[in-house]
Amino acid sequence: MATLYHYPLCPFSRKIRLLLRERNIDPDLITEAFWQKRKEFIRTNPSGDVPVLIIEKIKICGHYAITEFLEEKFETTFPEDINEKNECRRIMDWFDSKFHSEVLKIILHEKVERQFLNVEQGGGLPRLDRIKVGIHNLNYHLKYIENLLNDRFCLVSEKVNNADFTAAAHISCLDYLGDIPWKRYPRLKEWYAKIKSRPSFRSLLTDQIMSIPPRGKYVSLDF
Amino acid sequence: MATLYHYPLCPFSRKIRLLLRERNIDPDLITEAFWQKRKEFIRTNPSGDVPVLIIEKIKICGHYAITEFLEEKFETTFPEDINEKNECRRIMDWFDSKFHSEVLKIILHEKVERQFLNVEQGGGLPRLDRIKVGIHNLNYHLKYIENLLNDRFCLVSEKVNNADFTAAAHISCLDYLGDIPWKRYPRLKEWYAKIKSRPSFRSLLTDQIMSIPPRGKYVSLDF
Repeated sequence: MATLYHYPLCPFSRKIRLLLRERNIDPDLITEAFWQKRKEFIRTNPSGDVPVLIIEKIKICGHYAITEFLEEKFETTFPEDINEKNECRRIMDWFDSKFHSEVLKIILHEKVERQFLNVEQGGGLPRLDRIKVGIHNLNYHLKYIENLLNDRFCLVSEKVNNADFTAAAHISCLDYLGDIPWKRYPRLKEWYAKIKSRPSFRSLLTDQIMSIPPRGKYVSLDF
Repeated sequence: MATLYHYPLCPFSRKIRLLLRERNIDPDLITEAFWQKRKEFIRTNPSGDVPVLIIEKIKICGHYAITEFLEEKFETTFPEDINEKNECRRIMDWFDSKFHSEVLKIILHEKVERQFLNVEQGGGLPRLDRIKVGIHNLNYHLKYIENLLNDRFCLVSEKVNNADFTAAAHISCLDYLGDIPWKRYPRLKEWYAKIKSRPSFRSLLTDQIMSIPPRGKYVSLDF
C-alpha cells in the first residue's frame, strides 16, 4: 500500500509517479492544492510541497528523498556504470533546477497558478512578456537535449533510466499546455514517443486540470 | 588526488568542501567565476555551474551527483536509520531549494553578484527593497530551525550529518555577509558553533571575496 500526495502539473510529482509505476507500485493519488497551504498538509510536510509518499508506514517528503529511498529499497532505475550514474544525476539536476527555474516555473506560473490566485496574491491573466522569456529559454534547452540525443538512444545511454523519467516529467507538463514545438526537434520527439508509450506513463495521460484541458495531441501516442 | 571547481560564496560548493574534508579528502581548489561562462569550463560542465569534482579520474558535475557519489564510494555521512535518512534528505532539499531561492539567492545577488555585472547584465548597487524581502524570509527560516533544535542536538538527530553540513554551508554564506542575527536564535548559534569548530570547516573560514571582506565575527569560533 502506497499513498502519494501530488499535483497533476507538478514535474516533481510526475517524476515520482513514473518511478513508482516503473517498479509496479501503483499508489493511491491524493491531489494537493499545495499553494493553499492546508494546515493538515503542512503537518505532513512542513515545506508545504508535493510530492509526499507514504509507503509501508514510512513517510518521505520531497522528490529528492523519495527518488533515493526507492533506489535503496527497490530495484534500481539508475544506470549501473558509475560514470553513467553520475551523468544521470547531472541531467536530473539540470531538469529539476535549471530547466525548472528558467522555463517550466515561469510558464506554469503564468498559464496555471495565476488563475488560482487572487489579485493580492499576484493572480491575474497570463503576462505575455513573461511567457516569451520562458519560451525563449525553452528552445535553448530543447536544442541541448536534441544534441545529447545525437549520439545516444536515450539521454544518458542506450537504456531508459532516471534521467529520461525526470526529463519526460518536466517536458510532459509543457506538452499538456501545448508548448513543445515537436516539428523542430525530431530526435526529441522520437525519444519522447518512446517514454510516452511505456505503461508507467499511462496515468499521466489521464490527468485533467480544472479549467485547463490538455492541448493538442497530449494524450495521443501518435503526435 | 582530487580537484574541486568551486566558488567561495556558493553554498553548494561549500557543502561539497565540507563533505570531502569530513572524509579526509583535501581537494585542490580552483575558483571558477561561473557567471563569466568560460568556454573551457562549459566543456567541463555544460550547465556552467559549480561545484565540479574530479577524483580518481572520474568527473562529477553538480552537488547532487557529488553528494551521492561520495556516499556510495566512501564512508557514509548520512544517518543509518531509514526514517532519519529520509528526514536528512528532506532538510537538505529544504536548504538547497527553498532556503536558497527564498533567502540566499536574493541576498547574494544583491550584495555580491551585482557588483561583478555591468549595467546591461543587471549589475549595480544593492537594491534595499530586495534585500528586505530576503531578510524577512530569512527570519521565517531561522525560526523553523530554532524550533527543530528544540528537541534535538543537531538538525535530524543527536549526531552531525549531511543535513547539518548542508544547512551550515548556506548559513555560513550569510554569516560571511554579517546577515545572521545570532542573538535572536540562541539554539541556532549553539548548533552553528559546534559545526564551525569542526576541522572540516577550517578552510571555509579563510575564504576571501575580492572587494567584500567577511563581516563581524565570521572567522571567530567565539562569536
